[in-house]
Amino acid sequence: MVRLDSSDPNFATAFAHLLTVKREIAEDVDEAVRAIIADVVARGDAALVDFTRRFDRLGTDFSAEHLRVTDAEIAAAVAACPQESLEALRLAAERIESFHRAQRPTDHRATDALGVTAGWRWTALESVGLYVPGGTASYPSSVLMNALPARVAGVPRLVMVVPTPDGQINPLVLAAAQLAGVHEVYRVGGAQAVAALAYGTATIAPVAKVVGPGNAWVAAAKRRVFGQVGIDMIAGPSEVLILADGHANPDWVAADLLAQAEHDVAAQAILITDSADLADAVEVAVERALTTLPRQEIARASWRDYGAVIRVRTFDEAVPLVDRLAPEHLEIETQDAEALAAKVRNAGAIFLGSHTPEAIGDYVGGPNHVLPTARSARFSSGLGVLDFMKRTTILACTPESLRALGPAAINLGRSEGLEGHARSVAIRLNL
Amino acid sequence: MVRLDSSDPNFATAFAHLLTVKREIAEDVDEAVRAIIADVVARGDAALVDFTRRFDRLGTDFSAEHLRVTDAEIAAAVAACPQESLEALRLAAERIESFHRAQRPTDHRATDALGVTAGWRWTALESVGLYVPGGTASYPSSVLMNALPARVAGVPRLVMVVPTPDGQINPLVLAAAQLAGVHEVYRVGGAQAVAALAYGTATIAPVAKVVGPGNAWVAAAKRRVFGQVGIDMIAGPSEVLILADGHANPDWVAADLLAQAEHDVAAQAILITDSADLADAVEVAVERALTTLPRQEIARASWRDYGAVIRVRTFDEAVPLVDRLAPEHLEIETQDAEALAAKVRNAGAIFLGSHTPEAIGDYVGGPNHVLPTARSARFSSGLGVLDFMKRTTILACTPESLRALGPAAINLGRSEGLEGHARSVAIRLNL
Repeated sequence: MVRLDSSDPNFATAFAHLLTVKREIAEDVDEAVRAIIADVVARGDAALVDFTRRFDRLGTDFSAEHLRVTDAEIAAAVAACPQESLEALRLAAERIESFHRAQRPTDHRATDALGVTAGWRWTALESVGLYVPGGTASYPSSVLMNALPARVAGVPRLVMVVPTPDGQINPLVLAAAQLAGVHEVYRVGGAQAVAALAYGTATIAPVAKVVGPGNAWVAAAKRRVFGQVGIDMIAGPSEVLILADGHANPDWVAADLLAQAEHDVAAQAILITDSADLADAVEVAVERALTTLPRQEIARASWRDYGAVIRVRTFDEAVPLVDRLAPEHLEIETQDAEALAAKVRNAGAIFLGSHTPEAIGDYVGGPNHVLPTARSARFSSGLGVLDFMKRTTILACTPESLRALGPAAINLGRSEGLEGHARSVAIRLNL
Repeated sequence: MVRLDSSDPNFATAFAHLLTVKREIAEDVDEAVRAIIADVVARGDAALVDFTRRFDRLGTDFSAEHLRVTDAEIAAAVAACPQESLEALRLAAERIESFHRAQRPTDHRATDALGVTAGWRWTALESVGLYVPGGTASYPSSVLMNALPARVAGVPRLVMVVPTPDGQINPLVLAAAQLAGVHEVYRVGGAQAVAALAYGTATIAPVAKVVGPGNAWVAAAKRRVFGQVGIDMIAGPSEVLILADGHANPDWVAADLLAQAEHDVAAQAILITDSADLADAVEVAVERALTTLPRQEIARASWRDYGAVIRVRTFDEAVPLVDRLAPEHLEIETQDAEALAAKVRNAGAIFLGSHTPEAIGDYVGGPNHVLPTARSARFSSGLGVLDFMKRTTILACTPESLRALGPAAINLGRSEGLEGHARSVAIRLNL
């Protein structure tokens, strides 16, 4: 953990270093992924079955007809879930869906004084594939966060793929899929699943876009199939930046830092405060809270290697630091949280006030928890309904409006050396 | 050129072949691009100057202080432009800006019955770099189409890079930059320009996103810097699909097919019609029009290698074909153009009626001419204001609403094995 102070003469250098620290070890799986994709393209289901038998340690009696998770299997999984968790998932689904419904875009069309009608309309993608990791990273909340915006967008075919290592699957993941209206579920993971979604096999029809988190293999496969299909962002390790003043409760701040740090040894938790006392108290509180945290090894490594406590003289001084960090999650626990939030340009999501821990947003707040990491909040947004729709622009000229606009188009076409463009206008105007 | 008929028994196979034809020769420049980017990162301006001297054949007296195109140079270029072209550009800029103003998104915030406030706000990217190709592909219209949505979004720093091979630059490109409110222009191109925009040098401060068309080197560089900065789509060769019935004018249809074909030998122009007579007449008209077209060699190669005329029995039969082709440009010249357009899901832009040639949209229609190619209209949209903004979600709980939502979040956190998440909520509720 580093402790910085904006009044130190070498603060600028130390802060710049914090920005450039690489937190991810890039596993070089690209060549292996290329081969897997080529095999799925060439052999379809047979390749899917081979890879799934091998990587997920399923027996030789696993065959293509077992790829699809049946409705009966889903119903049995739902029946096996604790009632309280199902109710929590239902509450989460309702709130997430309600929040995203407000994101549905509106179509537009207007006719100008010349008589030109121009506008656009939004349509849902025809189909979407949702990747869900297996094992301990198999989060039902992420199923909701990825699938519900697609459902709200009106995507008519929503496909989920999830590996079942040793035949195991988290029943809450299947419950979340059912709640979110997923139409098809397949027990296949890794690059082979991404390839199947992008190119299709006899069992899995191809989709238009693949979304969802995954390990290095999944990320490499998504990069490779991009263009053949759309993809969402490639997520990096999670981050939180907390702005807190001397009124903040150090135990609460410490708990929020550790909620982030427990994700991953490469996660990053940063506190910026104008209070040296709070800085000290939070450091102590983190150490104390770590001792009883089940994932303390992970959280301790993240805090030790990437954690930071930065003291600033004023929060105005913090604003440009926030914008440069462009955190995935920004918690603001200061007296003037709203006013401070208004000054920030770059953040994936903002959590206002001391009663809004980031973890509420992970589950039941309503906004999406799939957010830009690794400073990409400078140029991108969290997942939303627009990621599952696309805009088609519309243009319609009347003979009169074509006559009004035509000469300018002809001039520009010729000035760009594109006589054919000019002629396609001129021929309609007898020019 | 292929001619297909939906009533042929092997139509499905022939159409599927049309979908999978690769039109681009992938130049393998990735390793060279990697080295160029590394050199710009390591040596900054010195590398930019070296590459620019070499690739653009500028003399050894070209140095870092010449990288920036001065205001005086821009003013001189504007003064050298034909008045009629400047006026056409001005008309185009006004119409494009006006169209895109309607795309500005609205912020949202609502407080629910529990007292949870949730919403989002949109902010402009802090800076954007616009790549403009040199030589014959240096299109002033593309400067407007890329820069104006950024200006409408409110991007406070808009940087343009453009190579000047042998010191030459199209003065209309500089005029377009001035009209579109570009703040800085640099005479540098290729992978080195993209690297400078992404990583910064002493002369060129880094940007948050790089947009604009370019050759294989530029495309490879954009792919490589993605993550460090945002990028727009990687554009492929242009395409038009025309739906026309027996009432359409075959000479107009032919002119529109050739306006597309003249772009590039890899461009694609397709006609789908329910009239065998129109199909025949358009074929004849294309051959006749080709004989006088300045870029006839290019257009002829495109039409010969990738052109298609498809006869369908009814336009209802055409709709799924359109959706599978997902054309960049869709012209509909049928009696019921509006109704037919409403049935199509996948298209970058639709041009309605026989008085709306696609070339009007290239210049002065208003909608953007940067559109998804290579079937990517299945999952993506043309360039617009949203490409230069990002959304930050906002969440604020009161003590009471945290008490209402907390138990569900705690349950889900524990069910996902994330006790730290659960504790960050529980600690605030004394649970």
